[in-house]
Amino acid sequence: MKRVSDVWKLYEDLKTVGQEEIPLEEAYGRVLAYPVVAPLDFPPFPRSTMDGYALKAEDTFGASLSSPIPFKVVGEVEMGKAPTFVLGEGEAAYVPTGGMLPEGANGVIMVEHVRGISQGEIEVLRPIAPWENVMRPGEDFKKGELLLEKGRRLKPQDLGICATIGLKYLTVFKKPRVGIISTGDEIVPVEAEPALGQIRNSNAYMLMGFVKQEGGAPLFLGHVRDRKEELIDSLKKAVELCDMVLVSGGSSVGTRDLVAKALEELGAEVLVHGVAISPGKPTLFAKVDQVPIWGLPGHPASCAIVTMVLVLPSLRKIGGEEPYLPPFRSYIKARVKRNVPSASGREDYIRVVLEKRGEEVWAEPIFSKSGALWPLVRGQGLLKVELEREGLVEGEEVTVYLL
Amino acid sequence: MKRVSDVWKLYEDLKTVGQEEIPLEEAYGRVLAYPVVAPLDFPPFPRSTMDGYALKAEDTFGASLSSPIPFKVVGEVEMGKAPTFVLGEGEAAYVPTGGMLPEGANGVIMVEHVRGISQGEIEVLRPIAPWENVMRPGEDFKKGELLLEKGRRLKPQDLGICATIGLKYLTVFKKPRVGIISTGDEIVPVEAEPALGQIRNSNAYMLMGFVKQEGGAPLFLGHVRDRKEELIDSLKKAVELCDMVLVSGGSSVGTRDLVAKALEELGAEVLVHGVAISPGKPTLFAKVDQVPIWGLPGHPASCAIVTMVLVLPSLRKIGGEEPYLPPFRSYIKARVKRNVPSASGREDYIRVVLEKRGEEVWAEPIFSKSGALWPLVRGQGLLKVELEREGLVEGEEVTVYLL
Repeated sequence: MKRVSDVWKLYEDLKTVGQEEIPLEEAYGRVLAYPVVAPLDFPPFPRSTMDGYALKAEDTFGASLSSPIPFKVVGEVEMGKAPTFVLGEGEAAYVPTGGMLPEGANGVIMVEHVRGISQGEIEVLRPIAPWENVMRPGEDFKKGELLLEKGRRLKPQDLGICATIGLKYLTVFKKPRVGIISTGDEIVPVEAEPALGQIRNSNAYMLMGFVKQEGGAPLFLGHVRDRKEELIDSLKKAVELCDMVLVSGGSSVGTRDLVAKALEELGAEVLVHGVAISPGKPTLFAKVDQVPIWGLPGHPASCAIVTMVLVLPSLRKIGGEEPYLPPFRSYIKARVKRNVPSASGREDYIRVVLEKRGEEVWAEPIFSKSGALWPLVRGQGLLKVELEREGLVEGEEVTVYLL
Repeated sequence: MKRVSDVWKLYEDLKTVGQEEIPLEEAYGRVLAYPVVAPLDFPPFPRSTMDGYALKAEDTFGASLSSPIPFKVVGEVEMGKAPTFVLGEGEAAYVPTGGMLPEGANGVIMVEHVRGISQGEIEVLRPIAPWENVMRPGEDFKKGELLLEKGRRLKPQDLGICATIGLKYLTVFKKPRVGIISTGDEIVPVEAEPALGQIRNSNAYMLMGFVKQEGGAPLFLGHVRDRKEELIDSLKKAVELCDMVLVSGGSSVGTRDLVAKALEELGAEVLVHGVAISPGKPTLFAKVDQVPIWGLPGHPASCAIVTMVLVLPSLRKIGGEEPYLPPFRSYIKARVKRNVPSASGREDYIRVVLEKRGEEVWAEPIFSKSGALWPLVRGQGLLKVELEREGLVEGEEVTVYLL
């Protein structure tokens, strides 16, 4: 039986998917395949951040309401054009926000601090400091600066910075194709009316959702009956088509053994068979021809928790995302509302409902069997009991991962 | 000038988009258009949660290693089938995990606590409590229970529960179509080589990303020059095609005035012209024929922050999502690393870099002009200075919204 942290270590050797070039407008949420370095100083020219008058800041020193300083207005900067004139001493030019400063200017005084006195002449009513109300060349970023790291999942603002430097196309990692195979003789398709003793296939749909959430492309390869030859055929097809395969197990030991045997006959390298996690202990991780294969527990809650803690980081890894750990990105600190028993030697993940009490958040455990799915839907978070702990004490501060 | 909280109040009247029916496998991240109520008790039959022997719990009372109790094995439950036999006193039947309990059984003893003595006979080595290792009918959820609320954005586990109750198709809200119009004579397309005084269009790409992040369908309607008639034509087309329109302004007062005038001539109802937020004060919110139109500031950081704080909640509202507030879903508590000045009477959003010091997180403000985009890319969060505060003091505990 392996610890969760030891399973994670195995991901270092997983092969990353290939790359593709896509238009910038389709790049949201994709994973960058190379580092983006600034090819220029930005902004490339001194830009006004206000509507006002460009001038030499030093010429305004000493100006006040009672002793304003007059300036000659020698031009007006047009948006999107470089000024064709140069400012001399005591000269100013109107400049709109975003406009380029003319040569000779090193500051902009806001229109509110200026008084018009006659055609082509203004009075400045207060001094400005050099470069006040100006964005200097390279002030946002400088040529050669690393703007976006390889492996970054692109956010909206990242697309903005790519556009700024003229990247109409980006090279990203392909979306990992993840094959999903269901097993278990008690499982019927969602559209079927289950007979007594049967239940509908929920794990396949949940897994498709998790794969999409992580930016992968799920491919449901259907349900196979608990016959070894059928499972081997389905796995062979999956390994050919996909970058990763998830086998959503039936819940019985018999089905689990079947998955292990089928993998063995396929010549799989079985890396993990049993993990120190609850729920989710009977998890299997193997590789066939460099394709990682997960044998997941059949109980829906176990399946979901193993997917979140173990499968998704491995999916990020093959999808090129860095960092691919920790498994949960979003968490809060909370106090636990009751004692939580737990066995030492395994990580426990407990479904919790959150409740705000003043400034504090309290987490109420939903004690439920691992076959229950609704607690994962109702629950707003997962509370982790560390490997070496034997439980939690009411009122203790804990980390809750948000679902 | 309106407060942020007063702007949010205006969303109550916004019209929600239409609905459509989609297959369950495409429903991840979509917004549910009706409440899902359980049509049955689940599980519908008593299910074993272990591999073991089904029996009557009361028959095991008193069993121990030194005085085991013998049981007659009268059958074996097949996965996915209802047992055809009934258990009498002192009788047991093998049942796999997930199998249905036969009539007469009210518990399962794990194989580990049983010893085979002869063909068709076992000894039980410890007692079990009634319903031990059994998931009783309705234990996960009961008929009539509200499983998923209307307006919920569907998570992977939600798809699992829909599959469980046989929902092969779901009715969801359509993806809101969001038109994006760029203005500003200094702006050139991403593929152009900007001349001195020009910069590339970054806001349109950033906005497309934000719309996708929120589950909307962005539609870039192109860049219009700062001519009122062109802008009016573009807005007319946008209002016909879209559920919401974002006008990404040039940064100058002239361009902003142009957007306001164009809206006026279109007969728009202007609801907001100026918001008590920094950056992002010159924000405009209007409606034409029930279609909400945002006039966004041109500075990239202002545009991004106004989009996150004001636009995205309004997009969620028209997309049917409930709740559509607060604007940020993910936040942490941190201590601020230096004094932060702020003007009372506006909400300030400061870009911060986070740093872990032992158990505490510290937030280091990146002071930058609102025209700068990189701080939003480098920054891991946004620190909010409340409306009535005049700044923050070094070491103070603050809320940081995660980017």
